[in-house]
Amino acid sequence: MKRYMLTVAYDGTGYCGWQLQPNGITVEEELNTAISRLLQQDIQVIGASRTDSGVHAFGNVCVFDADTRIPAEKLALALNQRLPEDIRIRSSREVAPDFHPRHTDTIKTYEYKIYNDRIENPVTRLYSKFCYYKLDIAKMQEAAAYIVGEHDFTAFCSAGSSVQSKVRTIYSCEVFAENTTFAGESHADESKSSTAGAAPGPDDFGRMITIRITGNGFLYNMVRIIAGTLIDVGTGRTKPSEVGEIIESKDRSRAGDTAEARGLTLVKIYYPELDTLDDKIK
Amino acid sequence: MKRYMLTVAYDGTGYCGWQLQPNGITVEEELNTAISRLLQQDIQVIGASRTDSGVHAFGNVCVFDADTRIPAEKLALALNQRLPEDIRIRSSREVAPDFHPRHTDTIKTYEYKIYNDRIENPVTRLYSKFCYYKLDIAKMQEAAAYIVGEHDFTAFCSAGSSVQSKVRTIYSCEVFAENTTFAGESHADESKSSTAGAAPGPDDFGRMITIRITGNGFLYNMVRIIAGTLIDVGTGRTKPSEVGEIIESKDRSRAGDTAEARGLTLVKIYYPELDTLDDKIK
Repeated sequence: MKRYMLTVAYDGTGYCGWQLQPNGITVEEELNTAISRLLQQDIQVIGASRTDSGVHAFGNVCVFDADTRIPAEKLALALNQRLPEDIRIRSSREVAPDFHPRHTDTIKTYEYKIYNDRIENPVTRLYSKFCYYKLDIAKMQEAAAYIVGEHDFTAFCSAGSSVQSKVRTIYSCEVFAENTTFAGESHADESKSSTAGAAPGPDDFGRMITIRITGNGFLYNMVRIIAGTLIDVGTGRTKPSEVGEIIESKDRSRAGDTAEARGLTLVKIYYPELDTLDDKIK
Repeated sequence: MKRYMLTVAYDGTGYCGWQLQPNGITVEEELNTAISRLLQQDIQVIGASRTDSGVHAFGNVCVFDADTRIPAEKLALALNQRLPEDIRIRSSREVAPDFHPRHTDTIKTYEYKIYNDRIENPVTRLYSKFCYYKLDIAKMQEAAAYIVGEHDFTAFCSAGSSVQSKVRTIYSCEVFAENTTFAGESHADESKSSTAGAAPGPDDFGRMITIRITGNGFLYNMVRIIAGTLIDVGTGRTKPSEVGEIIESKDRSRAGDTAEARGLTLVKIYYPELDTLDDKIK
């Protein structure tokens, strides 16, 4: 019996989140089914992050125990042939038998994406929150600086969380905007008045805004509440300096709304201790 | 009775293309239904580009004739409230009564996207073609230069096209690669061996490659065949200079495969004469 680790990417649109549920298909269920069929054993994965319904991942992690002669590194390829196309195993490896993806120190990176334009873009709609009001990026960046550091994030935690300590350390919280591939582009020959396509008029500002946040732990809905709060800063509803006060207040009602799931992606989970644990399997 | 022009964006994933069909929902059908209901008249739009099943658009164009007191510019907003979320009207305006979106000179821009990595990315899979083999961008750029100019593009036209002349002018054909938001990024603390997420290993090269092409007209499947041919150049199967020979040959069988629809987006249609025609409605 060995323990294997998978790095899993998925489009969360069609799933009721990660965790097994009586009603609705989940990522965990699809993985259990695919691995069990491949290895002809009853496999149940242990996930690192039980992402909510509609949340996406590029690098979620899970482990499972199995007996197999398939080399650990080949499991990814074999599983991808059995998984639906909205779930991909990015890599597979063996880990120490006592490595637990939730009970080991981690550094996680999330991205929250906001499509900021007058009109929603159908092609990015499933992977970003749409915001009609022009957001002030500089103010959002100013506010993001208050998030960085070791804080009690009670104000940014949804009710129902059972964790003891709500102190977490955020290493970085960046806000940046990119013109979407299409917006802001204009053909050399064209004058504004006669453009049928992506004419940048006075009201146009089509761009994708990304909030990229890295920390040693995240409370329930924490990234989505931070995103909702930074959006309030971007619209002018909240001043950047108020974000510091909101943290201090430990009052959930003072922070912004929980921004919708579709904008959130779990980008990466890094295990600083994995190298040390690796010695056990060498 | 006035003629109105709409600029239409859509996610083509769920549609059997633009044009009305007996079996299957099309973008044209959704537009006819929404406009007819809004204006309480039987409206049939005339589209500029009848995109194929699965092809996306950011700036397709259509016109229709109607009697309404709704200001032309407000039609976009009113229609967006009635359309499914994978179709958005980006703008609306009045045009001259004899403006025809297919019988007026145009400059069109398309983008073909290729996700180039060892493992497919679930989140970009609907809007790009996946290519496992590492593509040589410099060679693709060299080959793209042969596409630019006035040529007989018979070799890049699918059978079944009924157009007389296959001479078209391509103003530009650019190939560029962007790291995806996730790939290539690495946390400062991490060493390769212990990364669970987007570790850039020796075989990793996650990036989105865009072929952006602008011209005065495009034959049936022309952009997708150009994309398929440039992919062959990227893998080394075809030499860049051979693309010039393929054009000269006027032989469809010498060009590459028709690259799949999901990678194609009609970005923009520009009507150089629209300003002049505008005088009729002033």
